[in-house]
Amino acid sequence: MNFDDPIDRRGTHSTKWDKMETLYGVSPEDGLSMWTADSDYATAPCVIDAIHKAADHGVFGYSWDHPDYLSAVQWWMQTRHNWAIEQDWILTSQGLGNAIALCLDVWSDPGDGVVTFSPVYHEFAHKIAKTGRSLTECPLKRADDTYVLDLDDAQSRLTGNEKLLLWCSPQNPSGRVWTPEELREISAFAKRNDLILVADEIHHDLVFPGSTFVPMDVAAPEARSWTVTLTASSKTFNIAGQRTGNMIIADDSLRAAMKHRMNTLDYGAGSLAINMITAAYSPDGAKWVDAQIAYLDENRRIFDQAINAIPGLKSLPLQSTYLAWVDFEGTGMSHDEVAARIRDTAKIAVSQGPSFGAGGEMFQRFNLATQRSRVIEACERMTRAFSDLQ
Amino acid sequence: MNFDDPIDRRGTHSTKWDKMETLYGVSPEDGLSMWTADSDYATAPCVIDAIHKAADHGVFGYSWDHPDYLSAVQWWMQTRHNWAIEQDWILTSQGLGNAIALCLDVWSDPGDGVVTFSPVYHEFAHKIAKTGRSLTECPLKRADDTYVLDLDDAQSRLTGNEKLLLWCSPQNPSGRVWTPEELREISAFAKRNDLILVADEIHHDLVFPGSTFVPMDVAAPEARSWTVTLTASSKTFNIAGQRTGNMIIADDSLRAAMKHRMNTLDYGAGSLAINMITAAYSPDGAKWVDAQIAYLDENRRIFDQAINAIPGLKSLPLQSTYLAWVDFEGTGMSHDEVAARIRDTAKIAVSQGPSFGAGGEMFQRFNLATQRSRVIEACERMTRAFSDLQ
Repeated sequence: MNFDDPIDRRGTHSTKWDKMETLYGVSPEDGLSMWTADSDYATAPCVIDAIHKAADHGVFGYSWDHPDYLSAVQWWMQTRHNWAIEQDWILTSQGLGNAIALCLDVWSDPGDGVVTFSPVYHEFAHKIAKTGRSLTECPLKRADDTYVLDLDDAQSRLTGNEKLLLWCSPQNPSGRVWTPEELREISAFAKRNDLILVADEIHHDLVFPGSTFVPMDVAAPEARSWTVTLTASSKTFNIAGQRTGNMIIADDSLRAAMKHRMNTLDYGAGSLAINMITAAYSPDGAKWVDAQIAYLDENRRIFDQAINAIPGLKSLPLQSTYLAWVDFEGTGMSHDEVAARIRDTAKIAVSQGPSFGAGGEMFQRFNLATQRSRVIEACERMTRAFSDLQ
Repeated sequence: MNFDDPIDRRGTHSTKWDKMETLYGVSPEDGLSMWTADSDYATAPCVIDAIHKAADHGVFGYSWDHPDYLSAVQWWMQTRHNWAIEQDWILTSQGLGNAIALCLDVWSDPGDGVVTFSPVYHEFAHKIAKTGRSLTECPLKRADDTYVLDLDDAQSRLTGNEKLLLWCSPQNPSGRVWTPEELREISAFAKRNDLILVADEIHHDLVFPGSTFVPMDVAAPEARSWTVTLTASSKTFNIAGQRTGNMIIADDSLRAAMKHRMNTLDYGAGSLAINMITAAYSPDGAKWVDAQIAYLDENRRIFDQAINAIPGLKSLPLQSTYLAWVDFEGTGMSHDEVAARIRDTAKIAVSQGPSFGAGGEMFQRFNLATQRSRVIEACERMTRAFSDLQ
């Protein structure tokens, strides 16, 4: 469990490192990559052992039932999230991007509206646009250093044409861990507006001490007939490249609709990914995640301390996720100037705030799931890049 | 490259071994599994090495471009099949079952007809049925020990409602390697009837000495504007469990339609599978495949000799694939009696001939991609089970 072990991801088809120059104009030669949401350290030893074991077996033929996989998912939700699920609620997709796309495909048609609460995971808007759906963006309300719901405002923005609500919990990019009360408000809002509620809970495992994540299905079990929950081991165990995630659907009729669509498209998970996730969702995996959270907790402390010491910059306190959400409003600079300094002077590739929608205009998102030395280096670079503000 | 190494696949979520009792009533305790089309020996050492290497790296984050994968696919088609393809023709699906489903999704609607030439890979008919399409089954003509086309008969069976033709080359279950002349006849038949021609060439690498496989695109390049070719490393390298295959589409407009559909569903291949296939499609992989073909060639010789020595049984001579197609017509028994003897007396799980459609009624398909000792054991069991015919 040595998250400090130096690992060079350059030249490994890593999106984060091998695309940083093309997408963000920061060379991997001397740049730091802190954009896309994966980690720079290795996954849990129990996962790596499972891969070696499968390789030693050597046969990768057709694979069918995975009762131990389903048991592991069930065990994880129960022990980590106090969430009792049935094994047959679990439908395995090709990652959560694909799961969101499938939800759009099953429960809406081109032209239909889809609701999001911004700023939010930019892929929501991308997927809405590329499938010909229409975005109904409801801004979250900034309240001091965090965000809260403004459902009256949201209600006023709906056109009546909306079919789905894409909900992010814990929230990306702010790291906000929603309270059970807020979750019930959102589920009631979805019900009131006849929306299928898709709760993307991909970051649910990475929650810092002091906050408690509650699954939508636990907070609002009465909402099952209009709720689909998305979970994955991809952030938790840094295995997003395996592109495997789950839709957990308690309601028989919602589940039947999704199962039918997946069946007509002949979906099925890869056996190595299944082996990896089965190994991950285990007591050994849980211990590794606990250690990771402690490591990330210190990364965010170091980062926040340095960033908040720069006049005009504010890193919002994270309740969850390894994605620091930094407000540059106080600098008085334009977004473009901020972006240019980070890119050209600090030489850090970060996720651009405006891509997260309304409310993200003056923010940048920094990924802290990296070796601590890189976090410290990023802090030094940022301090220098904005030194004239001292 | 020791295909004789004993490997016990029971309890590994192997469809072939762990589902044989449920599906075929043959216990894995003392039964032999010779049904679903994967192999019982390990994949190529170069593939296994690639998996260990990825596990040692340990990071499985987001993965994007794979130019070396595309180069490897391109190199393989050129060197093994004399087929010059462009890298951007390659679209990677979640295995070929998913690719067939996507073709049905993109180029037909529920209620439309889909043409097959039977007996043929049973999943064609399954996928047609489960997506609400209508099967137009055109029987191949038996000619001595093989099958030939009867396109006049086929033409008479079309209703005019057909949109696609699912074509299998080399042919499963007969192992027939089609001639370039026959391929041109099929492509012209598709053109004449305004059908998208989906050429499933998954078995293209496993061709025995004396036969030469020619890709549809090489035999009939004029057919590109109505042809989609499906290829995979899954049979060749026994990695079907990774569920990764390719649609190779030369025509810009066909490719754009498929790309759009895959994009709206947010497809993307798993990085470990990509690493495995990149390693497979290499000179080392090619040597391993050559050795495998020699091994399978001897397996089929042993099997055919033993089976054809039983009066009334005829194992059709295989030009390709490891799937022996055995005709029991000469026994005078009913299919059910034949099936019962194989199941209860020989204790072998085999693919039932009738599932392959018209023409398969009196056949059974035996998978010979297993350790030779199992092939010999199967021959002894079959000889005993049908000893009263001696």
